[in-house]
Amino acid sequence: MKYYEIPNSNLIVSKLALGCMRLAELSFEEAEKLIYTAREWGINVFDHADIYGNGKSETIFGEVLKKNPTLRKQIIIQTKCGIKEGYYDSSEEHILASVNASLERLNTDYLDVLLIHRPDALTDFSEVAKAFKILRGEKKVKFFGVSNMNSIQIEILQKHLPNKLIFNQLHFNVVHSLMIDEIFNVNIANDYAVNRTGDILDYMRINDITMQAWSPLQISLTKGTYLDHPDYLKLNQKLHEIGTKYGISPAAVAVAWILRHPAQIQVVVGTTKPASLRELVKAVDIELTKEEWYDLYLSVGKKLP
Amino acid sequence: MKYYEIPNSNLIVSKLALGCMRLAELSFEEAEKLIYTAREWGINVFDHADIYGNGKSETIFGEVLKKNPTLRKQIIIQTKCGIKEGYYDSSEEHILASVNASLERLNTDYLDVLLIHRPDALTDFSEVAKAFKILRGEKKVKFFGVSNMNSIQIEILQKHLPNKLIFNQLHFNVVHSLMIDEIFNVNIANDYAVNRTGDILDYMRINDITMQAWSPLQISLTKGTYLDHPDYLKLNQKLHEIGTKYGISPAAVAVAWILRHPAQIQVVVGTTKPASLRELVKAVDIELTKEEWYDLYLSVGKKLP
Amino acid sequence: MKYYEIPNSNLIVSKLALGCMRLAELSFEEAEKLIYTAREWGINVFDHADIYGNGKSETIFGEVLKKNPTLRKQIIIQTKCGIKEGYYDSSEEHILASVNASLERLNTDYLDVLLIHRPDALTDFSEVAKAFKILRGEKKVKFFGVSNMNSIQIEILQKHLPNKLIFNQLHFNVVHSLMIDEIFNVNIANDYAVNRTGDILDYMRINDITMQAWSPLQISLTKGTYLDHPDYLKLNQKLHEIGTKYGISPAAVAVAWILRHPAQIQVVVGTTKPASLRELVKAVDIELTKEEWYDLYLSVGKKLP
Repeated sequence: MKYYEIPNSNLIVSKLALGCMRLAELSFEEAEKLIYTAREWGINVFDHADIYGNGKSETIFGEVLKKNPTLRKQIIIQTKCGIKEGYYDSSEEHILASVNASLERLNTDYLDVLLIHRPDALTDFSEVAKAFKILRGEKKVKFFGVSNMNSIQIEILQKHLPNKLIFNQLHFNVVHSLMIDEIFNVNIANDYAVNRTGDILDYMRINDITMQAWSPLQISLTKGTYLDHPDYLKLNQKLHEIGTKYGISPAAVAVAWILRHPAQIQVVVGTTKPASLRELVKAVDIELTKEEWYDLYLSVGKKLP
Repeated sequence: MKYYEIPNSNLIVSKLALGCMRLAELSFEEAEKLIYTAREWGINVFDHADIYGNGKSETIFGEVLKKNPTLRKQIIIQTKCGIKEGYYDSSEEHILASVNASLERLNTDYLDVLLIHRPDALTDFSEVAKAFKILRGEKKVKFFGVSNMNSIQIEILQKHLPNKLIFNQLHFNVVHSLMIDEIFNVNIANDYAVNRTGDILDYMRINDITMQAWSPLQISLTKGTYLDHPDYLKLNQKLHEIGTKYGISPAAVAVAWILRHPAQIQVVVGTTKPASLRELVKAVDIELTKEEWYDLYLSVGKKLP
Repeated sequence: MKYYEIPNSNLIVSKLALGCMRLAELSFEEAEKLIYTAREWGINVFDHADIYGNGKSETIFGEVLKKNPTLRKQIIIQTKCGIKEGYYDSSEEHILASVNASLERLNTDYLDVLLIHRPDALTDFSEVAKAFKILRGEKKVKFFGVSNMNSIQIEILQKHLPNKLIFNQLHFNVVHSLMIDEIFNVNIANDYAVNRTGDILDYMRINDITMQAWSPLQISLTKGTYLDHPDYLKLNQKLHEIGTKYGISPAAVAVAWILRHPAQIQVVVGTTKPASLRELVKAVDIELTKEEWYDLYLSVGKKLP
């Protein structure tokens, strides 16, 4: 495993984080084995959200923590709040209630990182600031970040906070690469040029906010993975070719594509299988050439102007 | 009625403004009655433009002012300039000529607020600054703002001005909600994610510029109102339901939807009927719950990611 | 000819630059004649790129320079680097190698201006800064700029540089006018409102970066010119009408349309024919009225809201 130092924090995080969304689907034994496999391969960040499995993912994780009390100090636990059934809620009341419930489920007295999961259009930013202040004061949360937000959403929230937001978690991979498409297609009369991310990638680089990439292997929330997907034959062929060259799986090449970007992106891998996790971890040991990175991007069917 | 204090000014404005575009369609008596109804219900802002009714809307308003000389001091008169037949013009010459003509039509020697109506792509910003300086020096205009502009258009104009722009008037309502759609759909490969407003809502909150919402009940300039429109059955059902709960009309609920936003948006209502105005004013006395606000938004057919 | 002073430099440039992309198609004699025609009409900027004609355009230009040694001091030579076969590359290694090869081909020991041709998504900006520092230290390049970049791409690169970027070269004309369409259509639910340039035009005005317009007569890289194009009958009719009024060609009117903008845009004309060049140069001697500028824009089929 390799690690990043996260600006504006004392965190040193593994390049891959384990996404715990689907932990709820596992038995206690399976979950424990997955978590220990992650630890064995050097992963030290575990990414949760209050809503994953309706809380059950945090609950199982908390049970593993309880049984293995030395684990807590070795790892970085991150969770998220702000999504309710049918709407988003970044009110002070909801943030505090959500964190307290997460702490209880996780069997821990602190979170290393809390992210606002989705932007609530009705956010009163002074309420968020107040909630964060309380949580920090009570030593319940060490660092804060956001998820699925663009530049100005970070800007306006940051304006109300005394400490810097450290993460923004976004859907990103070689297929879902809007933030790259925008960069290449500036001032072109096509759909790739369309600004849908508020220049988020360059914004985060300028402001030392670390991107976490969610769903590194998914086309979209509804369309599933692009691995072996018939719409992405050329991409899959390239992933295989390059995987063969480096002795890693196509999925690991897809993860390596994200890691190749100089923005130092952390990849949240959500597999529930220890064997798959072991394969993906190999992505950190290779570095794609610039040509390979572009070849993969272009093999999706995108073009350079 | 309830009121907002407008940052960077000494203005205290009613949450609703009377939009005077269609005053030109009224007789003197009808116009006078409408204006007095507005006053009676606490509305103190009257929104004009040099082009409304080809100047006739300002003329009728000016006649009412002339007949009721005590009225002028009690109210805030705002007008706009910058649209000519076939093009936009923010030249010094046009701004000065337009304001002088508006003052004459309105039978007043000052405007409380002047807005640039639309962005003229050929604007020489130092000319705008010069025109504003002259108008302020001659005590013809107290405060300045813009309309239909995005963040950077405000930024570049503001850079040339000694005083802060206080308003930006934009089309906004539960159906025409591009600036909300953008917030929710960051980094999604759909049309709702498309940046068409330059993040204007968050930008105005950061910079203490007050938004005025025009056409709070219209889909677009050509498609008419969404009230009782067959394409918006579910929305209208919700508007009725919530209206029944609070004892106000569906139209008033639609206005309340805008007022619910924490950005402190002033709503410009353009009705010409005193009875309709009385109904709409009731919007200021209720506050939608967060769930109701989201329910209305989603009932238009939009989705949260 | 008329000239612009370029902010943050000591350059005084002609309003038209000669685009040398197609010099590779000419014989030595033709190229020499074209260059001398440009000089005769006051053009002092010659725009190259390492990839034009696979280097042959620079080579021919270098041969003309060699034969006419007094020419070098009278002119401003600009070239670009960063595009490789199949991908973009703004690495230190590639920038240095490309500039050295360009200098050799051009038979000169310095470039007045170097532009990064396209944004490389994998750019390590500290490498660009290092390359620029070396090139300036060795007196190989006097000033730096970019091409086809939006606001934040300039922002992040600029953040790493001690001196200001002076140019951004972009495709712009009355047909390909995304950066104008965006200005007019803020907050409208149509495709013209879509932000595809990162508000680049206003950004450059705010930051004193001069725009160079490439392909002033082309619809797009693949669709050819709009002059006499059947899809643009009304535009061509207007170009003729206005050309007749001022005694210049329709093409010159199209160039004058760009020059009319107050941002002080330099137009890169890429003709290879001395006679055409002479016609285009006449654009600098007229100034379209505001009405004519808007009429031309609207004659493309675009609308003002």
